[in-house]
Amino acid sequence: MAVSMYAVSVPVFVKHLNGLAACLKKAQAYYAEKKYDETTLMHYRFYPDMFSFARQVQAMCDHAKNCTALLSGVEAPKLEDSEKSLAELIARIEKTIAFLNTAKAGQIDGTEEKAVTVKMRDRELHLKGQELLLNRSMPNFFFHATTAYDILRHNGVEVGKRDFMGS
Amino acid sequence: MAVSMYAVSVPVFVKHLNGLAACLKKAQAYYAEKKYDETTLMHYRFYPDMFSFARQVQAMCDHAKNCTALLSGVEAPKLEDSEKSLAELIARIEKTIAFLNTAKAGQIDGTEEKAVTVKMRDRELHLKGQELLLNRSMPNFFFHATTAYDILRHNGVEVGKRDFMGS
Repeated sequence: MAVSMYAVSVPVFVKHLNGLAACLKKAQAYYAEKKYDETTLMHYRFYPDMFSFARQVQAMCDHAKNCTALLSGVEAPKLEDSEKSLAELIARIEKTIAFLNTAKAGQIDGTEEKAVTVKMRDRELHLKGQELLLNRSMPNFFFHATTAYDILRHNGVEVGKRDFMGS
Repeated sequence: MAVSMYAVSVPVFVKHLNGLAACLKKAQAYYAEKKYDETTLMHYRFYPDMFSFARQVQAMCDHAKNCTALLSGVEAPKLEDSEKSLAELIARIEKTIAFLNTAKAGQIDGTEEKAVTVKMRDRELHLKGQELLLNRSMPNFFFHATTAYDILRHNGVEVGKRDFMGS
């Protein structure tokens, strides 16, 4: 089977969203056991002008969701960026996975040259499907996934690379 | 043009290796200006059982190099894991990029089903080319690249996402 736009996107996103959800569940258990305040984790950032932990998880979900929506042409569910707890972040990941699982290979394969428009706060990016996936969505997805994982590790949550790699 | 094993591997690796090399050059300038000891950065880790900064950069290079070697069937140059400075890590990245640039699309395209063996310390993994790339090399490459970047940010080096995204 030849590699395809679908193979490089949805299953990869789903695998690592599952991985991060498992990490968040371990964090939830750890913070509960230690009676730590989850808010300190939600707001944790490695540097003052970097995203907080909660924002890292939101961004990870958004890159997967928006990439899938733009390639497949199916509108993505709107998600408010209002999560206040690990449980709410886990729910966001689960909603994202549920949306990704509605995308069929046939809707995404062959979108290499499809013209897509990424709407950003202050401008629009005009890309082809393959550029969107390989130059923007995939690197950003892994960037935010990894930074969220690193924040968990740095805060003492006992997760490992195997969790991150997902299933 | 259809997405291909080459398109998903070598150009993506090279882009972000260039990105991280640029980050390391900024770190070099910053540590020199502040008269900070680079050794503290080389040894920095987010948690006692995580890889150090130097090891993160080595691992990023190795995933790109080994994936390219296994898919193309061309032996990769051996690199000692002996870097003691940012200059030496930058040289490692440059050697890795030089090797990746010798790989031709024709050597890597069509390797989706190719049987490859990943030799690990204590065992061997038997994978198909597409599994190697999508389930192992690509996620690990981005994992180590991002963690290296996060360590730089956490230590005050003024790099940004644009640097990470490479060219």
